[in-house]
Amino acid sequence: MPKWKNVFVTGGAGYIGSHCIVELLEAGYDVIAVDNFANSVNDNGEAISLKKVEQITGKPVAFYQCDLLDKPKLEEVFSKHEIDCVIHFAAIKAVGESMQFPFMYYKNNLIGTINLLEVMQAHGCQQLVFSSSCTVYGNPEHLPITETHPTGNITNVYGRTKFFIEEMLKDVSAADKSWNIISLRYFNPVGAHPSGDIGEDPTKPFTNLMPYIAQVAIGNKPYLTIFGGDYETTDGTGIRDYIHVMDLASGHVAALKALQNEHLRLKVYNLGTGEGCSVLQLIKKFEEVTKTKVPYKIEDRRIGDIVSMYANANLAKEELGWQAKCTVEEMCKDFWRWKIKNPNGYKTDAVKQVANGTTHTSTSVTQNGVHK
Amino acid sequence: MPKWKNVFVTGGAGYIGSHCIVELLEAGYDVIAVDNFANSVNDNGEAISLKKVEQITGKPVAFYQCDLLDKPKLEEVFSKHEIDCVIHFAAIKAVGESMQFPFMYYKNNLIGTINLLEVMQAHGCQQLVFSSSCTVYGNPEHLPITETHPTGNITNVYGRTKFFIEEMLKDVSAADKSWNIISLRYFNPVGAHPSGDIGEDPTKPFTNLMPYIAQVAIGNKPYLTIFGGDYETTDGTGIRDYIHVMDLASGHVAALKALQNEHLRLKVYNLGTGEGCSVLQLIKKFEEVTKTKVPYKIEDRRIGDIVSMYANANLAKEELGWQAKCTVEEMCKDFWRWKIKNPNGYKTDAVKQVANGTTHTSTSVTQNGVHK
Repeated sequence: MPKWKNVFVTGGAGYIGSHCIVELLEAGYDVIAVDNFANSVNDNGEAISLKKVEQITGKPVAFYQCDLLDKPKLEEVFSKHEIDCVIHFAAIKAVGESMQFPFMYYKNNLIGTINLLEVMQAHGCQQLVFSSSCTVYGNPEHLPITETHPTGNITNVYGRTKFFIEEMLKDVSAADKSWNIISLRYFNPVGAHPSGDIGEDPTKPFTNLMPYIAQVAIGNKPYLTIFGGDYETTDGTGIRDYIHVMDLASGHVAALKALQNEHLRLKVYNLGTGEGCSVLQLIKKFEEVTKTKVPYKIEDRRIGDIVSMYANANLAKEELGWQAKCTVEEMCKDFWRWKIKNPNGYKTDAVKQVANGTTHTSTSVTQNGVHK
Repeated sequence: MPKWKNVFVTGGAGYIGSHCIVELLEAGYDVIAVDNFANSVNDNGEAISLKKVEQITGKPVAFYQCDLLDKPKLEEVFSKHEIDCVIHFAAIKAVGESMQFPFMYYKNNLIGTINLLEVMQAHGCQQLVFSSSCTVYGNPEHLPITETHPTGNITNVYGRTKFFIEEMLKDVSAADKSWNIISLRYFNPVGAHPSGDIGEDPTKPFTNLMPYIAQVAIGNKPYLTIFGGDYETTDGTGIRDYIHVMDLASGHVAALKALQNEHLRLKVYNLGTGEGCSVLQLIKKFEEVTKTKVPYKIEDRRIGDIVSMYANANLAKEELGWQAKCTVEEMCKDFWRWKIKNPNGYKTDAVKQVANGTTHTSTSVTQNGVHK
């Protein structure tokens, strides 16, 4: 059993948050989750994904609808529980949208995080696992990418918010030795819980590759557009390091364990498989697994797209004792199971609930799917 | 006469703000100023520096005590006037303090700026001159520093807040073509208005070189500590580009003119003299001008101090038609006049007023004085 009991999860109703909560509950933690439903479906303020999580695990989740910009509300929720550690997923994350609405991104992601850190500090809870992203590396200078690869030089606002927060965390942990933080740089999370009962169901338009592939496979879209088929890669398409969301979830449990074992101040780990997979390879695997065709069209490269990006994941293996286990086949299989069982995602009625106060703008798929 | 009439100045009661307002009034603008008195002296909510500005110019300044973190108040002030342009000086700026209290710096400087930009946008006022700093360049890769020198890689929190804001301004102006922004990267402002009636009078302990020299010259401190006398410079001490605060002020008037003449989206200019001056050279000049001795002791170098930093100021000359005119001698002379006329700064009674809610932490002088 872990030393810590209560884990506070921001963005708990979202794709990665909900899968991580399954792993936390199964590892013996109690979970207090908040979400503002900016990008997750709710039923009268209840998080549908977390109701499913409770069914899967047979354990309860304490849930509160709360926006991190509402500091008094956050303060109130925090005061109700003895929090041992925070896992901070909450963020808006659509690259295209971030370029159109930079204020929204800087406000939500930066101010939300500052509020959270201040509330944590005020309550003497200074243990944190932060959701970072491989986007902080910008355009790779070498592959595979180790944690010592330079950060910054990022070409989009979303990525800059993650980079700025990482820089803030460095400063905050340098100023106050009480902080004990792990920042996890995710590569490209895909797949779903093997039950097929929870999965990726954004209220905003898809910008990641696998949901888009699935939309085509299921017949909701006629074909997939691939931007760039003449890159200097094995088959000309962009290469990413896809990681099963359940592997990502277990990476968070490993990070919690590390924080309990040792006062780390601030450590950064890549969470990836270490294996690159091209867009065409992913489509092919998806077709094999699902026995459906995924028609695609190759169009011109897009400016700013990164050609190839995959992790060196050795540090997490050595220091957290964690490594990704699932194959690309399993990622496709589990995603497809979720999609078949829930063709309309979490919604049960005809009209999909759309979160308040969010703007739908990003309509094109990010073929490279790097920005998760 | 300028096309624009009303200029809104944040941090208007501060050192650079108050001197800039003199130039604005003399150029024919009306000024609406706000300040939270975090680092400027007030008399029952009145800005003493701005009372002096009114005496110097014979013109009124509309002043409001307002913290940029108080968005409703900011909104209220903004609504009372037809604002044509904003000059945004307000920020906390003590390097040492910023390392100890990063939250305070990120909150004040970043959130304050986001609030300001949002209020501006809501009122259709998207003309901005931003107070940036040469600190965004980090440790210089080449000298003199042009505006194309890489930014980032900054070793202190204060500098990072300026860099992050510059990055935000880039994103904001890329997303919305209505923005018309000039970011001015100051080198090391010193000196005072030639009247000797306004000058630098922080409520926080001094961290800049010239006020410290003056404290020694006037007998309030026994000697000046210079950190590092064995650098690879002409006399072994650090080199900076000191610029007279009145030159800096006229740079802002030139920037306003440029913004009125052309829709620039976002432009960045160095404001410096282009001349490097060592610590010992500055002390020597100060001794000559004031005919007083400034005893000093040379101690070990400090980790993180930048050796040498001075501007290439050609771009501002070419595009803004501005250049610094004052010599180091004038900087010393004007600063000394202010100091002699006002040995206790703006305070008239025995007890110096200290702004609420600020913490005094930085006790050592920054010999290099770069972080202004």
